[in-house]
Amino acid sequence: MAGGEEVSNKQVILKDYVSGFPKETDLELRTETITLKVPQDSNAILVKILYLSCDPYMRLRMHKTEDESSVFTSYTPASVLTGFGVAKVLDSGHPDFAEGDLIWGTTGWEEYSIITTPETLFKIQHTDVPLSYYTGILGMPGMTAYAGFYEACSPKKGEYVFISAASGAVGQLVGQFAKLMGCYVVGSAGSKEKVDLLKNKFGFDEAFNYKEEHDLNAALKRYFPEGIDIYFENVGGKMLDAVLLNMRVRGRISVCGMISQYNLEQPEGVKNLMSIVYKRVHMEGFVVFDYYHLYSKFLDVVLPYIREGKIVYVEDIAEGLESSPSALVGLFSGRNIGKQVVVVARE
Amino acid sequence: MAGGEEVSNKQVILKDYVSGFPKETDLELRTETITLKVPQDSNAILVKILYLSCDPYMRLRMHKTEDESSVFTSYTPASVLTGFGVAKVLDSGHPDFAEGDLIWGTTGWEEYSIITTPETLFKIQHTDVPLSYYTGILGMPGMTAYAGFYEACSPKKGEYVFISAASGAVGQLVGQFAKLMGCYVVGSAGSKEKVDLLKNKFGFDEAFNYKEEHDLNAALKRYFPEGIDIYFENVGGKMLDAVLLNMRVRGRISVCGMISQYNLEQPEGVKNLMSIVYKRVHMEGFVVFDYYHLYSKFLDVVLPYIREGKIVYVEDIAEGLESSPSALVGLFSGRNIGKQVVVVARE
Repeated sequence: MAGGEEVSNKQVILKDYVSGFPKETDLELRTETITLKVPQDSNAILVKILYLSCDPYMRLRMHKTEDESSVFTSYTPASVLTGFGVAKVLDSGHPDFAEGDLIWGTTGWEEYSIITTPETLFKIQHTDVPLSYYTGILGMPGMTAYAGFYEACSPKKGEYVFISAASGAVGQLVGQFAKLMGCYVVGSAGSKEKVDLLKNKFGFDEAFNYKEEHDLNAALKRYFPEGIDIYFENVGGKMLDAVLLNMRVRGRISVCGMISQYNLEQPEGVKNLMSIVYKRVHMEGFVVFDYYHLYSKFLDVVLPYIREGKIVYVEDIAEGLESSPSALVGLFSGRNIGKQVVVVARE
Repeated sequence: MAGGEEVSNKQVILKDYVSGFPKETDLELRTETITLKVPQDSNAILVKILYLSCDPYMRLRMHKTEDESSVFTSYTPASVLTGFGVAKVLDSGHPDFAEGDLIWGTTGWEEYSIITTPETLFKIQHTDVPLSYYTGILGMPGMTAYAGFYEACSPKKGEYVFISAASGAVGQLVGQFAKLMGCYVVGSAGSKEKVDLLKNKFGFDEAFNYKEEHDLNAALKRYFPEGIDIYFENVGGKMLDAVLLNMRVRGRISVCGMISQYNLEQPEGVKNLMSIVYKRVHMEGFVVFDYYHLYSKFLDVVLPYIREGKIVYVEDIAEGLESSPSALVGLFSGRNIGKQVVVVARE
């Protein structure tokens, strides 16, 4: 790729900071051109994007964060959106990457990206599984489920585990990890279809549609008459409040995220925190980046599970970069069934 | 004490379940008679109460708890109140206790108590310190400070420590433990007099009157420009919400209690829980009973500190059982300066 061909490059732009629920119109597509070659004397790499990952944390970057030390730094309005993606290296100025390598990590939401810090990327070594899995079960959400469950929850066989947003990219895995460990596992989700998936595809012991429960406390008491040992928290707000009332002594709450709160002007107040004292609960927030050093150990665990069919993974695939704004926005109304992926190119 | 003298026995009765702030009129004094002898063939002990301890958790027992598994079981209306006390054994049916022994543990709020489960009591071995200390620094609140700080917070030298209700029975000790460990320590309290005590008597680095701060977040940013490593939580509500915004990465919140919430119809909602994720915070509720096995280790640490004057302890002494309803109720308006004790008899 000597001179570097100039090609058009479709991109997704965040127009401005978002308040409330994000809308498709908060994003826009534009087309630029790009030379398919890394700048001279740069150790950047140039990649062709194959898959993009729609993840709830992206909403946290769409408003201006006042806290400079936040792990979720704000996007820059009028710039190309970034997120996790799977891509193929077209040109490399970095000794560790060569043309043809497959990678996953943070990329632009566009057809081609120049990545100036390739050290932060993971090289994909195993291609006998779908490449899109590196946006989900084998990527950031997979590591999130693994670290948040095994590391932050200290699970034991026979414990009672509850997972909210349980059919999502992370939840479906946490539930399957917990079942493999011999736990009793219940999940909540937002539709009958998702509840069916939890029970019939992912092997949860029980599942319920939180939208049909006017009393979440009563719902949890129904499924956990003896209480909850482990709560894998993905939603926050009212669900957390109800869970707090149902924790067992020395229960653990692993806080992965709180998607129900991200689009509110003010987060809902959580009232039942004294349960943390009554039940001596450990509540721990975690961020997957802190656990990336475990990635190869994680692959050693999860790849065999996938190959042997002991873990399944459901993806919701949107076709083409044009569909990405709608796919991303759909996360917040729960439109996706399983991990939301955007296919930008298949190779 | 062969036959057992019959004497009058003043008692404090909880008239009925309490809602809102407890009032003196929720309690009443009555006088019964008691024979100063344990019933035959019983292994109970009969004690003369010397000091009674007024503790915030008692409010949690004054309403009907719906949760049967709660560690704070409801008081029985129209019965004698119970709490922590220091007492002298007058008669014993138990092989481990003899006339003249001094004990601390759960007793009735009365002049004389029959204790049917003396195994739950601690025998007082060291009387070169004020006996009333066994309601505070050497009793349940002392163990609470010790376990909640050293065990639940994993403190390290140089860390930034914030303590709410810092001049209270527990807070004043946590602050002194933290100073002895080489931490930077700030406390909040509800009056100028208490703030002075924190700075001038207990050696806190800084202290502030939360009632004079209209913006608790700004107050915390003033005292913790680099954030808080350890928060020893005694109050809950708005203070917790402000603290959450000021935690440092991998900070720890040890939840001892939430006194600001105990008298509300509905607890205040805590909104900033996503900070637990952003800052990977550990939040842990604890109950001192779980740590009683450390009591002798605790004495080994704290008694020398007291004798060498490295730790001081401030008590607010109310004279006579008649003053106990007002003393107890005063906790919830913050009337007490330091540990609230009631002297029932001096020997």
